[in-house]
Amino acid sequence: MQWNSPDDIYPTRLETEQWLERRDPTFWGRWTPQAPLTREQTESFEENGYLVLTDVFSPLEVTALQEESRRIRSGESTLTAENVITEPGSNEVRTVFRLDEQNALFDRLARDERIAGRVSYLLDDEVYLHQSRLNYKPGFTGKEFYWHSDFETWHAEDGMPRMRAISASILLTDNDALNGPLMLMPGSHRSFIACAGETPEDNHKTSLKKQEVGVPSHDSLTEMADRVGIDYAAGAAGTVVLFDCNTLHGSNGNITPFPRSNAFFVYNAWSNKVVDPFAARSPRPAFLSSRNPAGPIEIAGGKLA
Amino acid sequence: MQWNSPDDIYPTRLETEQWLERRDPTFWGRWTPQAPLTREQTESFEENGYLVLTDVFSPLEVTALQEESRRIRSGESTLTAENVITEPGSNEVRTVFRLDEQNALFDRLARDERIAGRVSYLLDDEVYLHQSRLNYKPGFTGKEFYWHSDFETWHAEDGMPRMRAISASILLTDNDALNGPLMLMPGSHRSFIACAGETPEDNHKTSLKKQEVGVPSHDSLTEMADRVGIDYAAGAAGTVVLFDCNTLHGSNGNITPFPRSNAFFVYNAWSNKVVDPFAARSPRPAFLSSRNPAGPIEIAGGKLA
Repeated sequence: MQWNSPDDIYPTRLETEQWLERRDPTFWGRWTPQAPLTREQTESFEENGYLVLTDVFSPLEVTALQEESRRIRSGESTLTAENVITEPGSNEVRTVFRLDEQNALFDRLARDERIAGRVSYLLDDEVYLHQSRLNYKPGFTGKEFYWHSDFETWHAEDGMPRMRAISASILLTDNDALNGPLMLMPGSHRSFIACAGETPEDNHKTSLKKQEVGVPSHDSLTEMADRVGIDYAAGAAGTVVLFDCNTLHGSNGNITPFPRSNAFFVYNAWSNKVVDPFAARSPRPAFLSSRNPAGPIEIAGGKLA
Repeated sequence: MQWNSPDDIYPTRLETEQWLERRDPTFWGRWTPQAPLTREQTESFEENGYLVLTDVFSPLEVTALQEESRRIRSGESTLTAENVITEPGSNEVRTVFRLDEQNALFDRLARDERIAGRVSYLLDDEVYLHQSRLNYKPGFTGKEFYWHSDFETWHAEDGMPRMRAISASILLTDNDALNGPLMLMPGSHRSFIACAGETPEDNHKTSLKKQEVGVPSHDSLTEMADRVGIDYAAGAAGTVVLFDCNTLHGSNGNITPFPRSNAFFVYNAWSNKVVDPFAARSPRPAFLSSRNPAGPIEIAGGKLA
C-alpha cells in the first residue's frame, strides 16, 4: 500500500474532514456458551465499542500490580529514557512505553487469558502487542487528553490496515468521575471521522503531549456527543476496560489529590499487522508501534503472581 | 483593623501554612417550621457547608435566564471591559463581573427570595452583594479552577472580617460530573487553612486566571480530601447551589463539547461589611469586592419574569 493510496478504505489527513462508514466488524467471532464473555457482554462491546470488566483479578494480584507500578515510577526498576514521556510543563512521569519488554509482571499481565484471551475471542484471531504502556495522571496537575480515535493515528501514522485491534486499560488506582477517568462516546466506533490536515514530520514528538493533527473538529465531536452522549469508565483498582480501536475517547484534567494510573495494552490481530503508513512519510518509532512482532503472544492462564 | 494585626482571628498569608479552627457558626439562625428551608436542608448545609436545591425556578424562568446569559455573552448587551475576564490562552469570555449592576434580570435574580431569602435566613441578617458574576466554562477548552476557600481571599485581600457570607451558584447549563462541575469538600468549611506566602501587589490581576497565592498546599488538600472526600454539584439548568464562604471548592477542566455556565452571587451579612484587608496592602477593586454598599438588598417575591 502506498502513502495516500486511492485504494485506502480509511483515507485520512485530508483537505476536509469527512465521516465515513466503518467497513469492518467490531466483534469478529461467534458467541458460544464456552466463550470467555457472556452473550450480553459480547453484544454490549459490539454495540458500544467498549466493555468494563470488574472483579477480574484477586486483591493480591491488584496489590502486586500496584507495587510494581510504584517501583517502575520511582526508578527502582530501570527504564530507557526514550520510553518515558513527562507531563507538559513539568518533569513528572506521564507515560512509560514498551511496558511488556521492561517488566516481567506486566509482560505476564499482557498475556493473561482474562485479558488477552477475551480480546483474541473478540477479534477472532491470535494477537500481538502493537503498543504497551503505563500511564500516570498525577493528582492536582494531571492534564487532559483530548478526544481521538486511536485507529485514525495507527492507520495514518503506523500503517494499521483495518479496524481489528482492541485496547485494554487495567486501572491501577480507583477511578471515579472526578479524577480524570477515561471518557468514551458509546457507538462512535461505527463511524470513521477522516481528519483534516497533513501529518507533520515527527508528529509523535508533540502529539504525545498534545495532539493537534488527527483529531476530529469541534463540530464533529459536538454532533457525535449530541447523538450518542458521553460515558466514562469508573471502577476500583483492578477494573479492566476493553475498547475498540475506533471508539472516540479522551480524558479531562485532574485537580483532585487522587492520581490515576493504568496499564495499557493495544492488541492487534495477527492478520492485521502494520504495513507502510497510510498518511505519513515514515512510520512512528517502534516504542509506539511494534513493527516486527516475532509471533503472536502466548496466552497464559492461572494467577498473575 | 490593621494589616497583619495580632488580633486577627483568621491570620493568613503566613510564613508557614496552619490549620485553624473556625470561630464562627455556619448556620447563624434558628430553625422554625416557617423557615424557608426544611430542618434537614438546614442541618445538611451546616454539616457539609453547602446545599443543592433543585426545582427552584419554573422552566420559563430558566429559559429567560439562559437567553439573557446568551445576550450578555454575545455582546448584544453592553459590558464594561474591566468587568470581563477571558480564558487563559484565548479571548473567550470566562467571567463577567458586576452582573447585578449591568443587567435587570440578573439583578432581579440576585434579589429573589428563593435565593436571597434563604441566604438571609441562614446568615440571620440582612445581606448585600459582595460580588456578582456570570461564569462561562466553554466546551472543549474550559480550564480548571484550583481548590480554594473564598473566605481566605476575601479576608486577606478584601477585608471581610468573619465567616458570615454565602455564595449562590445558579446553573444555566445542565451540569454532570464530566463537564467541569463545581467540586466541594464536604465539611471542609469547619477548618480555616491559613495559607503560606505573602500577597503580591495586584494579585487579583493574575489570580483570577490562575490562583497561586492563597491556596492550600498539596499536603493539606490531600489530608482534607482523605478525611472528607470530594462531592460535586450536578443538576439540570436552574439548579441552585448554596455554599459557605469557607468551603473548599474547585473545578476540573472540560474537554466535553458541553459548556458550563452559571450566575454567581456572593451574599455577605450586612453586619459583616468589609474593612481594610487583613493580609494585603490595599483592597481589590470594587468589581471583585463591593466596598460601599448603599444598603441591604431588597428581597423580591414572585416570579422572575
